[in-house]
Amino acid sequence: MYWQKDIETMPISALQALQLQRLKEMVRRASTSSYYQQLFQEHGVTVEDLQQIDDIHKLPFTTKQDLRNGYPYGFLTVPKDEVVRLHSSSGTTGQATVVFHTTHDIQDWANLMARCMYMTGARKSDVFQNMTGYGMFTGGLGFHYGAERLGALTVPAGSGNSKRQIRFMKDFGTTILHIIPSYALHLLSVFEEEGVDPKTDLCLKTVYLGAEPHSEHTRRRIEGALGVKAYNSYGLSEMYGPGVAFECPEQQGLHIWEDSYFVEIIDPQTLKPVSDGEEGELVLTTLTREAMPLIRYRTRDLTSVCSEPCACGRTHKRLSRIKGRSDDMFIVKGVNVFPMQVETVLMSIPEVGTNYVIELDTEEEIDVMTVKVEVQSDFFLGDVKGLKALQQKITAALRSEVLFTPRVTLVEPDSIPEAQGKAVRVIDHRQQH
Amino acid sequence: MYWQKDIETMPISALQALQLQRLKEMVRRASTSSYYQQLFQEHGVTVEDLQQIDDIHKLPFTTKQDLRNGYPYGFLTVPKDEVVRLHSSSGTTGQATVVFHTTHDIQDWANLMARCMYMTGARKSDVFQNMTGYGMFTGGLGFHYGAERLGALTVPAGSGNSKRQIRFMKDFGTTILHIIPSYALHLLSVFEEEGVDPKTDLCLKTVYLGAEPHSEHTRRRIEGALGVKAYNSYGLSEMYGPGVAFECPEQQGLHIWEDSYFVEIIDPQTLKPVSDGEEGELVLTTLTREAMPLIRYRTRDLTSVCSEPCACGRTHKRLSRIKGRSDDMFIVKGVNVFPMQVETVLMSIPEVGTNYVIELDTEEEIDVMTVKVEVQSDFFLGDVKGLKALQQKITAALRSEVLFTPRVTLVEPDSIPEAQGKAVRVIDHRQQH
Ligand SMILES: [Zn+2]
Ligand SMILES: [Zn+2]
Repeated sequence: MYWQKDIETMPISALQALQLQRLKEMVRRASTSSYYQQLFQEHGVTVEDLQQIDDIHKLPFTTKQDLRNGYPYGFLTVPKDEVVRLHSSSGTTGQATVVFHTTHDIQDWANLMARCMYMTGARKSDVFQNMTGYGMFTGGLGFHYGAERLGALTVPAGSGNSKRQIRFMKDFGTTILHIIPSYALHLLSVFEEEGVDPKTDLCLKTVYLGAEPHSEHTRRRIEGALGVKAYNSYGLSEMYGPGVAFECPEQQGLHIWEDSYFVEIIDPQTLKPVSDGEEGELVLTTLTREAMPLIRYRTRDLTSVCSEPCACGRTHKRLSRIKGRSDDMFIVKGVNVFPMQVETVLMSIPEVGTNYVIELDTEEEIDVMTVKVEVQSDFFLGDVKGLKALQQKITAALRSEVLFTPRVTLVEPDSIPEAQGKAVRVIDHRQQH
Repeated sequence: MYWQKDIETMPISALQALQLQRLKEMVRRASTSSYYQQLFQEHGVTVEDLQQIDDIHKLPFTTKQDLRNGYPYGFLTVPKDEVVRLHSSSGTTGQATVVFHTTHDIQDWANLMARCMYMTGARKSDVFQNMTGYGMFTGGLGFHYGAERLGALTVPAGSGNSKRQIRFMKDFGTTILHIIPSYALHLLSVFEEEGVDPKTDLCLKTVYLGAEPHSEHTRRRIEGALGVKAYNSYGLSEMYGPGVAFECPEQQGLHIWEDSYFVEIIDPQTLKPVSDGEEGELVLTTLTREAMPLIRYRTRDLTSVCSEPCACGRTHKRLSRIKGRSDDMFIVKGVNVFPMQVETVLMSIPEVGTNYVIELDTEEEIDVMTVKVEVQSDFFLGDVKGLKALQQKITAALRSEVLFTPRVTLVEPDSIPEAQGKAVRVIDHRQQH
């Protein structure tokens, strides 16, 4: 039931002791990088300031901008020839960032991934189809190494080519998928076109949804259509990649592996900690990284933490479903809106199809939000009156969520272009925003 | 100098004894697969027939069609839950094939790749940029695992996005590239556009050219432009992938790892062995594979073998540069032509640019071969007289190679669309061929 029972069910006091010991080790190690050496000096902190785990508040935060400033080698704590892997952000907009790994880090990461997958019931007898891109995207190689550590049969399918993906599922009896949620929704319509009923024609039992925040309704929809349990996977390339937090079979939040990450939730304005259950920005400190420790890294992801015991027996805290990045938020008519709010509303309406997009425009100096929504194919063939009623239903549901009236346009199934990789959900045409 | 000195320099008699022992083991193992069990029965052969290594001729060949017939599990010799990886051909045309690997196989493959790379001077201090696609394409994960085994810093760049590739080379001081030869040629023009001189602005010293047959002139051109040594890598997904044969620093043929593969060259018509140095079809038998041994597999690749000692001290035989697949050959006006012959001629002419394509048409029931050739950008800006002379020069050179007169069209640099992955060199518009 557990991949590493002693660690996963470790009593909280022991876990905290382990964290303090590892935090000291991390800070000592980080101090050997040129960037942290200077940062710690400026803040007048040393490892001696850490007497108890709460002393972590004495340490400065690390931001994405710090990673940019330190590019490429500012955060490295080992000789370059000890590094065996790097993952770099695209840097097409703004300056690039890079994360380095030693052999220890790669193995540590693979172990965390195996722990996540095992937790959901994955075993060596499973057939795991990895439907995300490989290369620089950490989701691909992250899950690949985890499945290999587990001894499952890995089908390195990569992204795209839905018909071939479905053929693999059939031919090899795939039991587990790793897939980006927006692509999973798209796949549902391909199953329909191909005349394949995933519930009866395939052996699927588990799906890992990663790399994009998604709503509970999106999960339930994918579960219902595929006849599987779908688990939320969370990670970011600044921390290895996936494997930071993962849902257990209870599906009541994502266990964050506290032996490897120290978790804080802060108010992004005041930078003060918020209480259990309160929403704020996730801040993570690596506890086992060798090549590149990161101290109090501001992820910009919004979530809350729950310290209550979990029915699965694991003692590690749980994150609530990630609401999105603070940068994802947009302001319309003075109201803060997260794409996730729109998605939650849309996916709760059965007649809504598998794709949507939010467009923002300015008309006579006033913000206009238009939500283009694909409609289920059988419903789309119905009468105009039905469509009109659906449009009004969606508009009302969105209004009650965002508190202003959006425009809703219903479109045919598959008429919104499918994204390569992560879906683009918001297109902002406004002059200034 | 050697990754595994004892194996790489093993005296020939010891190597042959090892091969016989492993061949028996393989045949015994293969006999447990449903496909070989039946095939061996039909041919009335058993492992007892193998008294000396030449007795391999008693065994039947295995063809691509056999792999299709046995799809998916016909060749499997281990329980399914011992399989940790599969690589499947696309099967968009014709039926798919699949190759399975155990943990042993993956490690064995990684070791062979590390042996190849080490042979060319790659060490843990190197920065290895893997510029091919990952996923089902075995070249990506094959080199990735080899570099990791070696302890080099792997930059899992994946394919495409040339500007980002060049930024990685600069930012991380890349010393080794793995790249498809047609993409390497394309990259030369991107360097020019970007104003980057790879010889002075980068740290490149080694390039691995794989996945496509290419000519000696292509290699010399890439070496000259990048200021590197370029090595020919050979493999096929039916045998793990890359790592079957690889050039040593002597660059006089590709050492085929005879501890892992038994090599034969046959006349594809008579199926009889040809002599050393004579061209024929490469036939390979796996000697160490666990999940899926293949016996006398007809690769369809045309080459010759050289058993002379190599100056590098390795005792393993060498393959000559692969001329192409027997299926690559096309017939124009009754003449057999390989794309490689055309490439060899084109790349020997300095004014020729980095891309070309061969188009085949029927005009008044007569075959017409048109070779579209990109011209070097500085030359293209010259006078019309120069272009006319170049066209005549190329036509004459091609005629003396293929023995009929092709049409040659000169086009601007970058006007032939760049391929995604392996280049499409021949477009056949003819009704019947
Ligand atoms: Zn739990
Ligand atoms: Zn040699």
